[in-house]
Amino acid sequence: MTQQPTDFEATLRRAIDLKTKPVGSLGEVETLAAQIARIQHSLNPVADTCRLTIFAGDHGMAGAGVSAYPQDVTRQMLANFLAGGAAANVFARSLGADVQVVDCGVAGEPVEAPNLISRRIAPGTANAIEGPAMSGAECNRALENGRKIGAEGSHPVACFGEMGIGNTSSASLIAAKLLGLPVTELIGRGTGLDDAGLRAKAALLEKAAGRTPDQLEPQTALMEYGGFEIVTMAGAMIGAAAAGKIILVDGFIAGVATLSARALKPETAQNFIYAHRSAEAGHGRVLEALEARPLLNLNMRLGEGTGALLAWPLVKAAAAMLRDMASFESAGVSGPS
Amino acid sequence: MTQQPTDFEATLRRAIDLKTKPVGSLGEVETLAAQIARIQHSLNPVADTCRLTIFAGDHGMAGAGVSAYPQDVTRQMLANFLAGGAAANVFARSLGADVQVVDCGVAGEPVEAPNLISRRIAPGTANAIEGPAMSGAECNRALENGRKIGAEGSHPVACFGEMGIGNTSSASLIAAKLLGLPVTELIGRGTGLDDAGLRAKAALLEKAAGRTPDQLEPQTALMEYGGFEIVTMAGAMIGAAAAGKIILVDGFIAGVATLSARALKPETAQNFIYAHRSAEAGHGRVLEALEARPLLNLNMRLGEGTGALLAWPLVKAAAAMLRDMASFESAGVSGPS
Repeated sequence: MTQQPTDFEATLRRAIDLKTKPVGSLGEVETLAAQIARIQHSLNPVADTCRLTIFAGDHGMAGAGVSAYPQDVTRQMLANFLAGGAAANVFARSLGADVQVVDCGVAGEPVEAPNLISRRIAPGTANAIEGPAMSGAECNRALENGRKIGAEGSHPVACFGEMGIGNTSSASLIAAKLLGLPVTELIGRGTGLDDAGLRAKAALLEKAAGRTPDQLEPQTALMEYGGFEIVTMAGAMIGAAAAGKIILVDGFIAGVATLSARALKPETAQNFIYAHRSAEAGHGRVLEALEARPLLNLNMRLGEGTGALLAWPLVKAAAAMLRDMASFESAGVSGPS
Repeated sequence: MTQQPTDFEATLRRAIDLKTKPVGSLGEVETLAAQIARIQHSLNPVADTCRLTIFAGDHGMAGAGVSAYPQDVTRQMLANFLAGGAAANVFARSLGADVQVVDCGVAGEPVEAPNLISRRIAPGTANAIEGPAMSGAECNRALENGRKIGAEGSHPVACFGEMGIGNTSSASLIAAKLLGLPVTELIGRGTGLDDAGLRAKAALLEKAAGRTPDQLEPQTALMEYGGFEIVTMAGAMIGAAAAGKIILVDGFIAGVATLSARALKPETAQNFIYAHRSAEAGHGRVLEALEARPLLNLNMRLGEGTGALLAWPLVKAAAAMLRDMASFESAGVSGPS
């Protein structure tokens, strides 16, 4: 966390406590307002506009049986995002957020669409069960693509989502190697595996994890096991934090991108707000490692940035509280007797 | 809960399951969408506009030492609401909700303001520690005032908030008598009592509770211990439910108004969505009695409808999901393999 001058902290605390409400009575909203104020170095913070960027990419190991869905679904869902029909689009429209979609490496021929941002590294990663998912140069390019995208735009709040069949497996492997944990502690059902599917996924991921030492440097973990969409997202988080944006962290996969971004650039930590606790099994471990207490707990496990979007109104309201609410003095209201 | 035709339930379940997402992956948002669809008898539900109505009233027992704040604060906060400076106003503006303010019986001379709705029963209740807070006729008038206010307006979502120094005490007593529990199980610090203040409040409320039998009929409980703002809110909930509105229930005091409304009119139950778990001690008991699992848990305890407002975007997004999201078929996306 960036060190703030003590007088800023004291002024901030006083500004929140003198609002026309009992001290502390807005609970987590007060904590949130304070964090937003620190990110923006302002007692009049703004969180009124928000952009969701969805990163899509395919995974070489998807064919091996780590997902309940066929790999084609990544491409089909990309079309669904571009047409505005997915859950993320609908939530964004309902709440007033912008959406942009980035092809980081979807399998097959490049998708042609005027509203698609193309940052393709390759038509999908290599199969990470057998060898590195990408080269070091590819990993660097994806990070750099992300950094630029993350830094763009005048929106103070950034949500990042992802789409990629097989990417909970990729995220589990990255998290295991960043945290030095057995991958089995980070495996879940993804978008809907049954018990037999889960056992098969566990065996495949143990094989993939066995290829490398128990703990890896962040860039190595991303190169060995990353999806292009996860690496690009990690880069975007670094870029957004450097640009002073508030970053709303979605669920398991975005949480692993956050772990990666924080491992690469520890000074980004202050910019993250954890939106929700996912129903995906590995998320609890990731949240522990991030020392995160998410705002929402709605048993969601969709990805796409849907959980991040749903937390944005809380962030917007928290900023407005600090910026616009009357003080006891300005409103002529008596304090406790 | 109103019995729905089975074919509506089956059609609703199928509509949610065929959206382009793994079945169940939006968790509580799916449950919420289904409830909204039932309330509106529609697979294309709408929750895009919301009105917060704040009910204000004073309590005869406020002078006895049940609150950390002087009674004048009710009137001062009424002015703050009318000027748009309170937390509820700021949240409502930030999220796009309307606010209206109702004087149900603030102490002193009537407040004159063009944007205030005056439904005064009396300048505050009688001291409920010593005798009934209001007469049966006053209670009926407050309920009827509320019913009319609750039924008005074309907004599909209604939030109800309250302001009244001493009203956590009133709510604790009403809840104790509705549930047949010792009042001590429903007492909290309100807006900020210390330990000594809490002990004194408990002694006063035990005395108040001792005046009447352990369990009371809802109308009797409201008459004996009600605040005019709580009774008017209970009436407004009944009126809003009859008008087919979605009612977002705020914290402890609104929860007790809900208990009262449901006791008076059990058919209202389906219309309530529980917004948040308050930090006020008695709220857990009230939520249990309501069999409610609130959407948010942000350690808030302010009242005014602030928690209800923060949950509105979730309701709005849930309705939009069911109404606007593509299906696997319409988007040409493959299901699980």
